[in-house]
Amino acid sequence: MITPNEIVIKMVLNAWASHIKQADSLINKLTDEELARQVAPGKNTGVYLLGHLTAVHDGMIPLLGLGDPFFPQLDDVFVKEADNSGLPFPPIQELRKFWIAVSRSLDDHFALMKPEVWFMKHNAVSDEDFTKEPHRNRLNIVVNRTNHLAWHLGQLALLKK
Amino acid sequence: MITPNEIVIKMVLNAWASHIKQADSLINKLTDEELARQVAPGKNTGVYLLGHLTAVHDGMIPLLGLGDPFFPQLDDVFVKEADNSGLPFPPIQELRKFWIAVSRSLDDHFALMKPEVWFMKHNAVSDEDFTKEPHRNRLNIVVNRTNHLAWHLGQLALLKK
Repeated sequence: MITPNEIVIKMVLNAWASHIKQADSLINKLTDEELARQVAPGKNTGVYLLGHLTAVHDGMIPLLGLGDPFFPQLDDVFVKEADNSGLPFPPIQELRKFWIAVSRSLDDHFALMKPEVWFMKHNAVSDEDFTKEPHRNRLNIVVNRTNHLAWHLGQLALLKK
Repeated sequence: MITPNEIVIKMVLNAWASHIKQADSLINKLTDEELARQVAPGKNTGVYLLGHLTAVHDGMIPLLGLGDPFFPQLDDVFVKEADNSGLPFPPIQELRKFWIAVSRSLDDHFALMKPEVWFMKHNAVSDEDFTKEPHRNRLNIVVNRTNHLAWHLGQLALLKK
């Protein structure tokens, strides 16, 4: 018998997995030339968004207590700075590999996570705040990051012909 | 003491409310002229996306067993058909009012919903399927619609100067 907590974890992880799958498919379809374009005139490029999503997802690893991020150097370029910072980007082919490495690592971690661990506090909330706001748990990070991913996927999808 | 189910409901409804708030703020900021523009060359217009989100959210009312939709006529134009269907759109000023009416109605319903009701099946899943897949509950509709909203908000945000 599936417990209520397991039902909820399944809801959240299904939504995450479905968006990662859409992202994988979209990124694979887009050529390097298409990714280098702006999603709309004067807006972020596809390559910036790919770097941004990779960096933000990589940041989930320490936030969820799963270890060190793989590519902390992406933070300066793709999170702290906007697309037009002038900072050099890694080659798109590298970024594609980074995206896959981070996605697969999160997949592996999520598959092994015990139900009760999802309801523990994440590493950006204090013990005191967590006592008052127990919804700021690890599963909530996945809820919020799925929405963040959907937001930018809607933009990346505009690069399709 | 807050129960685990209440914690989860809070996570999901907080994410929904935060995206509705962002949508309200964005729609208010965009002029009718800006909403009439395509979010990127050859892609959906802001007004189509506003109609689409309103129609999809209106459809949550029957799906969640909360009554009849307010504006079922929007379905043909904004869900079944694409932006370039040639079907006439309601005036943008009307669509802005429809959006507010649907959002406020869902807010009111959600505030009164009892925790256990969120875990009941929604109206697009059979009893038989729900027994096998208990994650296809009413709360899951909100998870999925929040991601859908985020996807299109990322696009609408491109209309800002």
